[in-house]
Amino acid sequence: MDVNVVFQPIGRKGKVCLGKTILDVAREFGVDLESPCGGNGSCGKCKVKLEEGFFEKYGIDSKAVNLSPFTREEEKLLTQEEQSQNYRLACCTKIMGDVVISVPNESERGKQVILEAAKRKLFQLNPAVKKYYIELQKPTLEDYRDDFTRVRDALVDKFNHLKKDRITIDYKVLTSLGNVIREGKYKVTAVLWMDREIISIEPGLDKKIYGASVDVGTTTIAASLCDLSTGEILSHASGLNPQIKYGDDVLSRISYCGMNEKGLEEMNDLIIQEINRLIQEMITSISVKEAYIYDIVLVFNTVMHHITLNIDPEYLGQSPFSSVVTDELNIKARELGIKICEGAYVYAPPIEAGFVGADNVSVLISEEPYKQDKMLLIIDIGTNGEIDFGNSKMLLSTSCATGPAFEGAQIKYGMRAASGAIEKVKIDKISLEPDFKIIGEDCWYSKSRTKMAKGICGSGIIDVVAEMYKSGIIRTDGTFNKKTGSKRIRKDDQGKMEYIIVWKQDTAIGNDISITQKDIRAVQLAKAALYAGAKIVMEKMGVDAIDGVVLAGAFGSYINKESAMVIGLFPDCDLKNVVTVGNAAGEGAKIALLNVNKRDEAKKVAKNIKFIESAAEKNFQTEFYNAMNFPHAKDNFAHIQYILDNVPKF
Amino acid sequence: MDVNVVFQPIGRKGKVCLGKTILDVAREFGVDLESPCGGNGSCGKCKVKLEEGFFEKYGIDSKAVNLSPFTREEEKLLTQEEQSQNYRLACCTKIMGDVVISVPNESERGKQVILEAAKRKLFQLNPAVKKYYIELQKPTLEDYRDDFTRVRDALVDKFNHLKKDRITIDYKVLTSLGNVIREGKYKVTAVLWMDREIISIEPGLDKKIYGASVDVGTTTIAASLCDLSTGEILSHASGLNPQIKYGDDVLSRISYCGMNEKGLEEMNDLIIQEINRLIQEMITSISVKEAYIYDIVLVFNTVMHHITLNIDPEYLGQSPFSSVVTDELNIKARELGIKICEGAYVYAPPIEAGFVGADNVSVLISEEPYKQDKMLLIIDIGTNGEIDFGNSKMLLSTSCATGPAFEGAQIKYGMRAASGAIEKVKIDKISLEPDFKIIGEDCWYSKSRTKMAKGICGSGIIDVVAEMYKSGIIRTDGTFNKKTGSKRIRKDDQGKMEYIIVWKQDTAIGNDISITQKDIRAVQLAKAALYAGAKIVMEKMGVDAIDGVVLAGAFGSYINKESAMVIGLFPDCDLKNVVTVGNAAGEGAKIALLNVNKRDEAKKVAKNIKFIESAAEKNFQTEFYNAMNFPHAKDNFAHIQYILDNVPKF
Repeated sequence: MDVNVVFQPIGRKGKVCLGKTILDVAREFGVDLESPCGGNGSCGKCKVKLEEGFFEKYGIDSKAVNLSPFTREEEKLLTQEEQSQNYRLACCTKIMGDVVISVPNESERGKQVILEAAKRKLFQLNPAVKKYYIELQKPTLEDYRDDFTRVRDALVDKFNHLKKDRITIDYKVLTSLGNVIREGKYKVTAVLWMDREIISIEPGLDKKIYGASVDVGTTTIAASLCDLSTGEILSHASGLNPQIKYGDDVLSRISYCGMNEKGLEEMNDLIIQEINRLIQEMITSISVKEAYIYDIVLVFNTVMHHITLNIDPEYLGQSPFSSVVTDELNIKARELGIKICEGAYVYAPPIEAGFVGADNVSVLISEEPYKQDKMLLIIDIGTNGEIDFGNSKMLLSTSCATGPAFEGAQIKYGMRAASGAIEKVKIDKISLEPDFKIIGEDCWYSKSRTKMAKGICGSGIIDVVAEMYKSGIIRTDGTFNKKTGSKRIRKDDQGKMEYIIVWKQDTAIGNDISITQKDIRAVQLAKAALYAGAKIVMEKMGVDAIDGVVLAGAFGSYINKESAMVIGLFPDCDLKNVVTVGNAAGEGAKIALLNVNKRDEAKKVAKNIKFIESAAEKNFQTEFYNAMNFPHAKDNFAHIQYILDNVPKF
Repeated sequence: MDVNVVFQPIGRKGKVCLGKTILDVAREFGVDLESPCGGNGSCGKCKVKLEEGFFEKYGIDSKAVNLSPFTREEEKLLTQEEQSQNYRLACCTKIMGDVVISVPNESERGKQVILEAAKRKLFQLNPAVKKYYIELQKPTLEDYRDDFTRVRDALVDKFNHLKKDRITIDYKVLTSLGNVIREGKYKVTAVLWMDREIISIEPGLDKKIYGASVDVGTTTIAASLCDLSTGEILSHASGLNPQIKYGDDVLSRISYCGMNEKGLEEMNDLIIQEINRLIQEMITSISVKEAYIYDIVLVFNTVMHHITLNIDPEYLGQSPFSSVVTDELNIKARELGIKICEGAYVYAPPIEAGFVGADNVSVLISEEPYKQDKMLLIIDIGTNGEIDFGNSKMLLSTSCATGPAFEGAQIKYGMRAASGAIEKVKIDKISLEPDFKIIGEDCWYSKSRTKMAKGICGSGIIDVVAEMYKSGIIRTDGTFNKKTGSKRIRKDDQGKMEYIIVWKQDTAIGNDISITQKDIRAVQLAKAALYAGAKIVMEKMGVDAIDGVVLAGAFGSYINKESAMVIGLFPDCDLKNVVTVGNAAGEGAKIALLNVNKRDEAKKVAKNIKFIESAAEKNFQTEFYNAMNFPHAKDNFAHIQYILDNVPKF
């Protein structure tokens, strides 16, 4: 009998045979648990926690059903408290039913890394919140102005651009105003939002002013902390979207909300808690208090937008896919439960339409196609793929159901961009031997072997498929060439072909890491969806060539643009006009945090861009079908013809 | 040994000898407990609850110390649950220390009444919140507008005066918008605040729209519920300000906030809970849900304003008495914890200055002296006295420390305007025998005796003092005339003079109800403060006569204007130009609820009225001293000369 096992926070899941130990399954799934004693129950390092005893069905109380009883070793090595909190030793505990297991930091061998987007645009630092230091007149029997009037008068006296009639005050700030003024001996620092609302007031002179931006992805949540007085990015934090246990894609999240009475509340709470955790992590690393974060920008796709803002996403999941709101929103952080300065606002950029969300608007204000004359194709690859096409005259957008293959999901040894993930791959055309680069390691594996591979992340997946195609291991239609003679190409247990990238003795997971025929199919489906989407918008625009391509997405590293083109991720384009920019949505969020004028741009572009429901276009199926194959000569991929001409024949 | 006893919610308190039963003390204090068995422990009707075991010092846990142990009768007549909740039978339980006792509704003989202000001005019905019914286009793949845009479009299409760009939506309403629209099958009723913010949305056509106004007095909180579609007042509720246990006047409330770490929180919570209770009481009586209350107007003096809005009142209590804010405020009810429609606002009118609060502004928009040419003197009598003087050209205001005598406090048998209170008194000039009217009884006592007196409320106090003066029982200086020969005039235990209004066999409290020399002094101090305040503002204005007087205040009934003039509550004026208007502050609150334009008037008058710190004026002491006496011939009280000339001489 097979049971479902999920490992958190890495997000690996799958079916396994009843009766295996947690440690065995972890290894099978590429979850890298500490186990220096080799799994004989003597070191106590492979500590894990049972989060749910019966996956998606029963609560924690049914734990006894789904795991073997405590062993004598566990009773010795785990404290009473740990036992009561459902900690177990992975090597001693057998899985007897569906479980969700979380791996504590100390038991995990490597910690995830997030690579900083390299591209930094120049723009004016002009945050939505600013600090103003003022010195107040003390009240007398003659000057009995109230405290708030006193503050407003001092502000407009000293800062000419502020208008007295426009200045309001957050209610919570008002409740403490009198005390703060006296504490500061009539010298205070006021924090103004949009130069009109006092969202905080502090005694004396206080220059510290921070803001956060958070990219709430379906799979990953990535946050940054900025010093709003300098524009400097001070720290980053990221984690798996904890909703992932309810499904990989947005549709499964929507249905969880719809099927469960408190589904939305639960899902919302998970996200908010994770955002708060990331904020705590970031401020701890630089020793400031959360109250010093005065502004926060959230970007997300439409479904994540709705769930994060506690809006029922139900109607996004069914035709005609209408959202509840598309306007930009400024919501008090305290109304959302986000723990920063009490009076602060959360800014969410506008949504374009349906599935094209605030995250795509964020990509647009980062890439600014509306300021350019050349026809730019912007592809943002996340769990969904979003495409923008056009220039200063006109912009079109569409959304493509790529599935999460490029995020490492639905790929046998896929994983997200974390320490131990293979992020680059090369295959020698003659020997068909691979070389690869692991996240956390500076050199290629052939040069240095201090780290062992755990799996393969998005950029690595694109690389390995492209290299397999370039070296003739797979054919134009994606099937394996069986005549290569390489021992790395073999049939798996089910008789399906696979290519071994790393032999098990060289991995951290004790299993061969391979790319399977099924993985190749998943990549084909994903890239065909993007290619067909691009073709549709080009057709709509009435052009048959593009001047440039921007590849965006929160990959582990910047994807290799040549590899991307070799697998046919986008239509033909001179590779020197293709740029890879990393997480442009996250970058746009930072930009909107640092320059409030970009929020006006966001409003404008969201209003003006035209959304194309590409899947509803009559040519879509044909385009999609044609794009399933990998590029070959007749495909008119002129710019990589030199590569295609050199594919070895076996 | 004497101990402190407080009865809630009536607010009676005093010192009594250790060892008396609760029932005895209740009778002594005029608290009317049910006790059909005559107090022998057999009926179980005199159930009371111990709220605090040791007055203002220890919590509820020390109850054993301050009451005698449970008797066999109590164990029989009280359930286990009642016993654990500190219910006791008043007749069986002896007071052994300081206690706060609450009297449940069912144990109280009469329920308080609140008399409706008679004067109703004509004004346009134009509430701040309005309901708009709209029918929406259903979304299609072509018309993929978001729900909020769809609602806005439908609103401006149907109602020309609404502007699309101005319409915003409350965040909480947004979270339910999608579901409400579908529930209503694309027909919804939107509730707009100020024609710009959607503060509620309901499925289908729903015309119910209510609002509440609350006059948060230092002593009493009085609330009204209005139908905002008709302007009709549907119900009333009122109760004692529960903060009264921390002191009668605003200064004691300020010091409680200052001296206790969570003082403000505690005080604020008491008020908010009481407001919520009154709202519940009102809506229950007319069977609507609290969510149908879309607007609420609160009026209060400055200290109550600050405490109710959770703003530290500390600096109001010390020179130069500055308030934290004086602007009108619109605060989300949910931020204050007031339980009405989730998106609704609480409106608080602006404050003039220092102790002249939003309640006085409320009186002004009710009486509109700024629309008149004649010089009007408005006296609002609460725990403090507030005076406004002037006309359309100029307005002055001042505040007078009257003490709470006119509210029935600091008067031996004083009580607030509740069932059983004497509200009118006449004294026969020859026999010196009194007649009186009790609240809840239509006729004078000499005509009908279905109700028994429990005490005397504000209007009764003014009456009895005026009648005692007119009939020669007291002299111009307030002292008793000992030569009257009436057996109603006698010395009390301490050798002080008193006049018996009701003999004990005719009262509900088993004690003679009298007016003492000390009571007369309290009235003299209060009326002198008001008179002196009026003189000061007249002087400032440079006039020596007034065209009219408005007597306002939340008395049990409208005070007798002749009585008020006879005791010298205000300077000489033709009695036909004196009007008594009841609770004008509460009336103003209702008006601001029903007509939003009056809120602009409030803003204007608060800004333009000039506040005079009368007690700081050099003439104040002299004026005050001169006003202590009751009016006599040389006082230039021309308009009551005929009365003064006919005072009997003994």
